[in-house]
Amino acid sequence: MILYTVPGSCAFASHVALEMAGADYEVRLAPRESGRTAKSFLEINPKGRVPALVTPEGVLTETPAILCYIAQTNPKTKLAPMENPWMFARLQSFCAYLCATVHVAHAHGHRGYRWADEAPSFQDMSQKVPQNMGECFGLIEREMLQGPWVLGDVFSICDIYLLAIARWLEADKVDTTSLVNVLEHRARMMALPEVQKVLAAEKALVTQAN
Amino acid sequence: MILYTVPGSCAFASHVALEMAGADYEVRLAPRESGRTAKSFLEINPKGRVPALVTPEGVLTETPAILCYIAQTNPKTKLAPMENPWMFARLQSFCAYLCATVHVAHAHGHRGYRWADEAPSFQDMSQKVPQNMGECFGLIEREMLQGPWVLGDVFSICDIYLLAIARWLEADKVDTTSLVNVLEHRARMMALPEVQKVLAAEKALVTQAN
Repeated sequence: MILYTVPGSCAFASHVALEMAGADYEVRLAPRESGRTAKSFLEINPKGRVPALVTPEGVLTETPAILCYIAQTNPKTKLAPMENPWMFARLQSFCAYLCATVHVAHAHGHRGYRWADEAPSFQDMSQKVPQNMGECFGLIEREMLQGPWVLGDVFSICDIYLLAIARWLEADKVDTTSLVNVLEHRARMMALPEVQKVLAAEKALVTQAN
Repeated sequence: MILYTVPGSCAFASHVALEMAGADYEVRLAPRESGRTAKSFLEINPKGRVPALVTPEGVLTETPAILCYIAQTNPKTKLAPMENPWMFARLQSFCAYLCATVHVAHAHGHRGYRWADEAPSFQDMSQKVPQNMGECFGLIEREMLQGPWVLGDVFSICDIYLLAIARWLEADKVDTTSLVNVLEHRARMMALPEVQKVLAAEKALVTQAN
């Protein structure tokens, strides 16, 4: 399998999941043009976004789908409790919140052009990011992150996906004072050898490209 | 189970799935205040949004999670091919695209206050909705909707979710001329007796509340 990524992006989650699953994979940089994904990448993913996972069956996109596919095709790694409908529903609910609300809140910081055309609108959106991301992570802190892992005692792809997005908190200027559980979870995730290996691989990809 | 809904919203998808699954459920209107969900609803769903499904195990939110939970707990209805990792991955990828990109594109029409503070920004966002929704549905038309159903020969929760969002095309002023497959799919979905029953139930809820 080939994972197309952009270092620092949410594709980090798919990269970590592949590593944790012990999957046979290769990572490539999605081609870039002026800070956006290059048009040539549309041939691989017509949405023009990362992550995109090239599998023997076709190209798979969207982080929740890729993470679940890696979990389901590597069942020994136990990255998703699919046999338990309620646990799996909570997993999916968490992933959907991250992709549809939290990632979207973050994207308004630098990708305002997706939803508007005028410079003052971009600035307006950008200014609201610390508040919106703060509210999202407040909800994660109080209502979702059960501890020690997102789903409680069961480690899952939720933890991997949360790490990918929690890495953005400082750049998004979020006041993290009250995010005690989120920061502790992030530190524990960062210390995992698979996460360190992926961080080094991302760094090498960037060095290689420059 | 109790489904909290707002007629015309994406909660329609969960309502139709419950009906198709033959589940034992009740539907209630989420309380409203000045066009938004009332604060009292935060006790049921801290996110303050619909759909919210009250199950014997807890409250479940996010459309992709609710639809999958209904499918998994009513396996005879075969609403999600979970035993096939690649088919299930495609299902999840489609649902993630609808919740994280298409629904978000739509929401910028009337919910600009979620991501900005100034009136001109709301207008700017609102004006871009026909283009963005048009591009999203263009991609669905060309790349995703295999026919006759989203996943090909297999009917699934993807079809139900697509219907819920395709109902917004006219209000979002999308040029539907080239959306031949999308419109044909929508018409076929609308004709299903379960869909007609849910539409009547939504109408009754509104009449009852007024």
